[in-house]
Amino acid sequence: MSQNYDDNNIFARILRGEIPAFKVYEDEQTLAFMDIMPQIRGHVLVIPKEAAVTVFELSAEASLACMQTVQKVGKAIVKALDAPGITLFQQNGAGIGQTVPHAHFHLLPCSVFALKGHQAELGNMDELKALAAQIAAAL
Amino acid sequence: MSQNYDDNNIFARILRGEIPAFKVYEDEQTLAFMDIMPQIRGHVLVIPKEAAVTVFELSAEASLACMQTVQKVGKAIVKALDAPGITLFQQNGAGIGQTVPHAHFHLLPCSVFALKGHQAELGNMDELKALAAQIAAAL
Repeated sequence: MSQNYDDNNIFARILRGEIPAFKVYEDEQTLAFMDIMPQIRGHVLVIPKEAAVTVFELSAEASLACMQTVQKVGKAIVKALDAPGITLFQQNGAGIGQTVPHAHFHLLPCSVFALKGHQAELGNMDELKALAAQIAAAL
Repeated sequence: MSQNYDDNNIFARILRGEIPAFKVYEDEQTLAFMDIMPQIRGHVLVIPKEAAVTVFELSAEASLACMQTVQKVGKAIVKALDAPGITLFQQNGAGIGQTVPHAHFHLLPCSVFALKGHQAELGNMDELKALAAQIAAAL
């Protein structure tokens, strides 16, 4: 597991505003936005603003901030999509499938076994934009 | 998603010492132990001692404590098993596959797509005991 943070990873660029994202929620320490290659409808990512490759490097402050945003946004997904629950998952280490080297939490309104492969296909941008607004409205 | 906490769920009983577990780590707010129906070798569960059905009901204090134990134990699994990384996942809501109604975090030294079905088969107790000791020694 590499701990070297690459400042040009796609999430770092989203945090700097260099790449657009369908934002659901943002505060001083975290950002939540739609995964543009959704593994299911309503797939949201929560990331810390702190530079960390995996959760193992997150400070206590950033860990708590992530969990609080996970709670807030997870409940909003359930409400907005009338979902039966939320799977939270996140991968640490390129060797086990982490694709972007900035710690991130996946929130998905389905069982972990109902997921499509990661980054299998690009989502519909209009639908993602509408979903972001719908979930943000349920916050 | 039901929010009614059942005080007789299996994790509540493990926390009260009524049912044995292969403990990896314990502190005032959390417990980590081997999943006895492992989805892969080295499958560890981290649970809060606070009574909460899902992560959505966890207090800030318990949320942070869980994340800190996840960090501590996750790193120990990597070290003990020379694993390439850790998947963290947890399910909230019986409707999407949560089987025990006490919030719990799965730690697995593999991709989320490499998992066997949940509770598919009972693990080997001697192996689980040895793994618990091996991971605890790497803390």
